[in-house]
Amino acid sequence: MPFWNRVVIIGVGMLGGSIALALRQRGLAGCIAGTGRNLEKLEQWRRAGMIDECYTSIEPAALDADLVIACTPVQCIASDLLAASQWAKPSTLLTDVGSTKQAIVSELEGKIRKGLFVGSHPLAGSEKSGAEHSKESLLEKRLVLITPTNSTHPEAIQQATALWSALGANVREIPAQKHDDILAQTSHLPHLIASALAAQTSTEHLDFVAAGWRDCTRIAGGDPELWCQILRENRLPVLRAVENFAKVLSEWQSALELDQPDQILNLLSSGKSIRDQAVGN
Amino acid sequence: MPFWNRVVIIGVGMLGGSIALALRQRGLAGCIAGTGRNLEKLEQWRRAGMIDECYTSIEPAALDADLVIACTPVQCIASDLLAASQWAKPSTLLTDVGSTKQAIVSELEGKIRKGLFVGSHPLAGSEKSGAEHSKESLLEKRLVLITPTNSTHPEAIQQATALWSALGANVREIPAQKHDDILAQTSHLPHLIASALAAQTSTEHLDFVAAGWRDCTRIAGGDPELWCQILRENRLPVLRAVENFAKVLSEWQSALELDQPDQILNLLSSGKSIRDQAVGN
Repeated sequence: MPFWNRVVIIGVGMLGGSIALALRQRGLAGCIAGTGRNLEKLEQWRRAGMIDECYTSIEPAALDADLVIACTPVQCIASDLLAASQWAKPSTLLTDVGSTKQAIVSELEGKIRKGLFVGSHPLAGSEKSGAEHSKESLLEKRLVLITPTNSTHPEAIQQATALWSALGANVREIPAQKHDDILAQTSHLPHLIASALAAQTSTEHLDFVAAGWRDCTRIAGGDPELWCQILRENRLPVLRAVENFAKVLSEWQSALELDQPDQILNLLSSGKSIRDQAVGN
Repeated sequence: MPFWNRVVIIGVGMLGGSIALALRQRGLAGCIAGTGRNLEKLEQWRRAGMIDECYTSIEPAALDADLVIACTPVQCIASDLLAASQWAKPSTLLTDVGSTKQAIVSELEGKIRKGLFVGSHPLAGSEKSGAEHSKESLLEKRLVLITPTNSTHPEAIQQATALWSALGANVREIPAQKHDDILAQTSHLPHLIASALAAQTSTEHLDFVAAGWRDCTRIAGGDPELWCQILRENRLPVLRAVENFAKVLSEWQSALELDQPDQILNLLSSGKSIRDQAVGN
């Protein structure tokens, strides 16, 4: 099993907290330092045993770190890792959990002064934020995508793979731009659609929502600030996904306007077919 | 507690089967007769104790029935209840579980020869069909909407309320057209959107879907034939709901095209606000 003597979690929220708990439970880390804006909350997680040290700035935390994981909102990740890299060792693994990858990876390309960077994205989100929603099993059997470039050090890939595998996840390498194009369709668009579906519901009709509406809109409960950043960072691929979705929607509109049973049935069947394929029915 | 000596479930699927199980478990029914197209399956449910008698036509089942519940696809419900009413007693409660109400209610208005009709809709669907997915607790704490008209016999309202309450549900009266307008927004539109979201996903990207996509598309796994009928029966209200949704979607498109962070944040916040309100956050 791999072991990191000094781990820094930048941003101890739901995901960062879950990673800390999992590293600890599996005996993969010596000291775990957490950074964040709210020292009181960090102290609370320290007392709860989730982390060992608390910092409100990155520099002292990152000094001599062996592993740094940025779990901050996507627009902070690149600068947070740049800050950490100044105090890291040449062998330190620097990675992140951001939902978008191209902007982060290109911002860091050639800029990391010390340490080995590779981007990561664990497909294990939740509409709940805050370390109080962390759980040590979060990454088990989940997929973690890592996004090396041509200039990524092989040791970074190897360490990141060892890290996520040791936490129970399956690891897959994918170019950052391809990651963003795919996730626009499989994650960012669903968020936007869930939000739009919730938004169009009249508040006086909320007594009449059932399990279908609830499931469809669950992720709309996510943090608007975080999601605003994700959608903006991946703006063009998301826009393309919205346009594709709008095409399907206009097929629906015309099938309903013209009351075409065969066309309605085709639309429903193609949705069901992909859904069934995804869940292995 | 109310008691019905002879109950007929027309269409022993997930919902009809669940009602049969709940009636039996709570001691509310004497003999439960089930009708369907597939005698072999019905015999299977009879052997499992879900029903007591099996029929492939409605007439012999409905003879002397005290309670008839049509659990067939929405486009069959009116004719099934008309058939049953010919063999019912004047005091027989005839009701249904259809997801649309206006077409059924207006088709039956003034046409029921014997028995007391009122439309019902339990908000307790599932993407799984077939009595093998029935469960006796399905209606507990769920909302059942009943849709009396000015000419509905008070005894029908009273009996239907007693029926669904005895199965653990909360009952609410609502005019059929209002029911259809609301459900277009809270149930039929989510189904259509879930289906479109699944349909636009490239099959080669299905490895990259996570919990968000899965929840958003769950109901897209429902039976296309059943849903085609529901959407066509409630075509115009559904079309209006799609148009409203498309407006929100085009606000999204323009906010992304113009990269307007405030507008994106507003859209996300209004979605979250309604979602949170619905689930009592």
